[in-house]
Amino acid sequence: MTGAVPAEDREARVCWARLAEPGDETAGALVAVLGAAPALEFVCGGHRPGAALQAAVGGELEAHGARPRDLSAGLRRWAPRIPELDAGRDLRAAERCRARVLVPGDDQWPDRMADLGCAAPLALWVRGRLDPAAIGRSVSLVGSRAASEYGAYLARRLAAELTDRRFAVVSGGAFGVDAAAHRGALAAGGTTVAFMAGGVDRLYPAAHDGLLRAVGDSGALVAEVPPGQPPTKWRFLQRNRLIAALSAATVVVEAALRSGALNTAGHAARLLRPVGAVPGPVTSGHSAGCHRLLRDGQAQCVTSAGEIAELAGAMGEDLAEEPARPAADYDGVTPQELAVLDALPLGRGTGSHGGSRGRGLDAVARRAGLGTAETQSALGRLSLLGLVDRDDAGWLRLRRLQ
Amino acid sequence: MTGAVPAEDREARVCWARLAEPGDETAGALVAVLGAAPALEFVCGGHRPGAALQAAVGGELEAHGARPRDLSAGLRRWAPRIPELDAGRDLRAAERCRARVLVPGDDQWPDRMADLGCAAPLALWVRGRLDPAAIGRSVSLVGSRAASEYGAYLARRLAAELTDRRFAVVSGGAFGVDAAAHRGALAAGGTTVAFMAGGVDRLYPAAHDGLLRAVGDSGALVAEVPPGQPPTKWRFLQRNRLIAALSAATVVVEAALRSGALNTAGHAARLLRPVGAVPGPVTSGHSAGCHRLLRDGQAQCVTSAGEIAELAGAMGEDLAEEPARPAADYDGVTPQELAVLDALPLGRGTGSHGGSRGRGLDAVARRAGLGTAETQSALGRLSLLGLVDRDDAGWLRLRRLQ
Repeated sequence: MTGAVPAEDREARVCWARLAEPGDETAGALVAVLGAAPALEFVCGGHRPGAALQAAVGGELEAHGARPRDLSAGLRRWAPRIPELDAGRDLRAAERCRARVLVPGDDQWPDRMADLGCAAPLALWVRGRLDPAAIGRSVSLVGSRAASEYGAYLARRLAAELTDRRFAVVSGGAFGVDAAAHRGALAAGGTTVAFMAGGVDRLYPAAHDGLLRAVGDSGALVAEVPPGQPPTKWRFLQRNRLIAALSAATVVVEAALRSGALNTAGHAARLLRPVGAVPGPVTSGHSAGCHRLLRDGQAQCVTSAGEIAELAGAMGEDLAEEPARPAADYDGVTPQELAVLDALPLGRGTGSHGGSRGRGLDAVARRAGLGTAETQSALGRLSLLGLVDRDDAGWLRLRRLQ
Repeated sequence: MTGAVPAEDREARVCWARLAEPGDETAGALVAVLGAAPALEFVCGGHRPGAALQAAVGGELEAHGARPRDLSAGLRRWAPRIPELDAGRDLRAAERCRARVLVPGDDQWPDRMADLGCAAPLALWVRGRLDPAAIGRSVSLVGSRAASEYGAYLARRLAAELTDRRFAVVSGGAFGVDAAAHRGALAAGGTTVAFMAGGVDRLYPAAHDGLLRAVGDSGALVAEVPPGQPPTKWRFLQRNRLIAALSAATVVVEAALRSGALNTAGHAARLLRPVGAVPGPVTSGHSAGCHRLLRDGQAQCVTSAGEIAELAGAMGEDLAEEPARPAADYDGVTPQELAVLDALPLGRGTGSHGGSRGRGLDAVARRAGLGTAETQSALGRLSLLGLVDRDDAGWLRLRRLQ
């Protein structure tokens, strides 16, 4: 165990992680008001909350923008689990699966979790290492489990390219986009983090056992419920808030309309974190969730690792390079000069049947719809640019107009 | 010729369309200030503009948000073409190719052109019919000439579906997206309009001769230059402003970064018309121009004819239907109820190896992380919803959690 956190506090938080379901804001507020250990003592002692404590918890919730919640309801929720509490057993279980229990105050505790307010996790079980420097520069890549070839390919490629840009890749370890993102980061030798909805000893889905072990070796497997706890639907939804909170930005790589990835995007938006969505073909429903986010203005359109880095990076750093534009022959040519080019016959060596003869100044001006003087001046500049030439009959264009 | 427009005015505008290149704002301003015929007389008379006329033309440009332009430069531009003027010849040429010459004041003159201010076309040559009722409800579908299968398929499908929604489809008759849009509208029995960069007797590209004739028969072929005039690069760019101006909204179906369709989108944006862009795969450059528009906030993301209709339709009409979402078993279930469902074993007939036995209330509450009373009330409501049942041992879930 790391850092200067008192053992009593760590043990109390381990108990709290068992008492309260993930995202229980009343629990978070009570722990914030009393401290983890006194709060645990209060709950286990079967006390009735006085008006002052109710008010303090209410104030804590309000201060973090959470809805008012009834402390008595919390006490009723937690009571059935009190008999299960055994911090020593939970800590030993963590050691058995080589997980570290992190709590606020530990070196590796991710500061960004504080943005969750009263819904911040009470403790985190980590297999591997949450390196603060690596995590500071991280992007979540999420999406549908039923990914298309397109979605899986993109997740893998974007993860690898973000790794090349020194970003850690965060996801949920699920089938489809999540797995492809972890694999892409691993293949590129990067750091990747997977959040589990159940305990970190329960590698879920089972088919990803090997992948998740590799994630733990390279980066970290993280859960907010103790080892042995099963994933549930509720925990999957709450796990998504941790993915959004840990990373600097969340990108939905491919998601159908009902994808859980949209839930993750919603958490990121509520945390005021940048949200990106990768567009895809509109002819299948696989990207319909991404398009919904774009239509509703909930996500920025991102199409490359560079654009994602810009979304996630510190202001001014990581500005996306402009996509390469095919070079055009006539960049920087004024409308008048373009009109003059339009008015010229195509010269020799331009594939135009051996080339025409030149056209006189007056005829060029008439065709271009310009005065003679303007035409002459435009021809002069075009000549300097190497775009026109003259023969004994007049002026010629040297390249085909696109 | 239609309506109450004096023949002299029509003939003068026919001459103006030959004197000035498309989009010549000085010409538009001078015609607005003096009237088409007096303006023509002034130019052909070789007069020098006085300060009062200069000021009036400047004021006209300014009133329409155009840059100040020098009237003398205009006179120098137009002078070389004066000897070519012959309104009678141009009108006869129009008759020969069965084109109508429209000028402001004619019944079929599209009112929306006025939004172009001093850059409004001076006259329009129309083969077919610009039905004001049909044009009032119109969408431009534009995109790359080098369209992918995806882009061409979408243009065709969206045009057909917009036709079903009683929209006219406007485009530029070019290869790729344009042609597919016209074809889709024709196949659905709709009205479609193609703007030519050259004269309406010069069906360009030649390979589209048959298609463009069919467009003229169903709707209209339109140009702002007289018959016989060649298309030029400048005229292609200016033609795009007419596409944007005629329609209620412009949608870029598929466009690479340098596509002329982005120029059309730019014209539409300057006219404050809604602009849509259809996303596509980011793995090819074919949709990169659309994605650029989305990233820059210059276009709304549209993925279906319904969404395009919403973009183009009058406020309140044509609201896009919500995309169909696959039905979920657990819509409308509260988080508490979801926690209770999570805590229940799967019952008989749910594919779970013959089903488990029920779970008692206290065990359910403990697993759900809820108080007994809340758990009981949640079970009551879930039972009414048909999602849970009980056996002699306790409560069971009737469906698999997704």
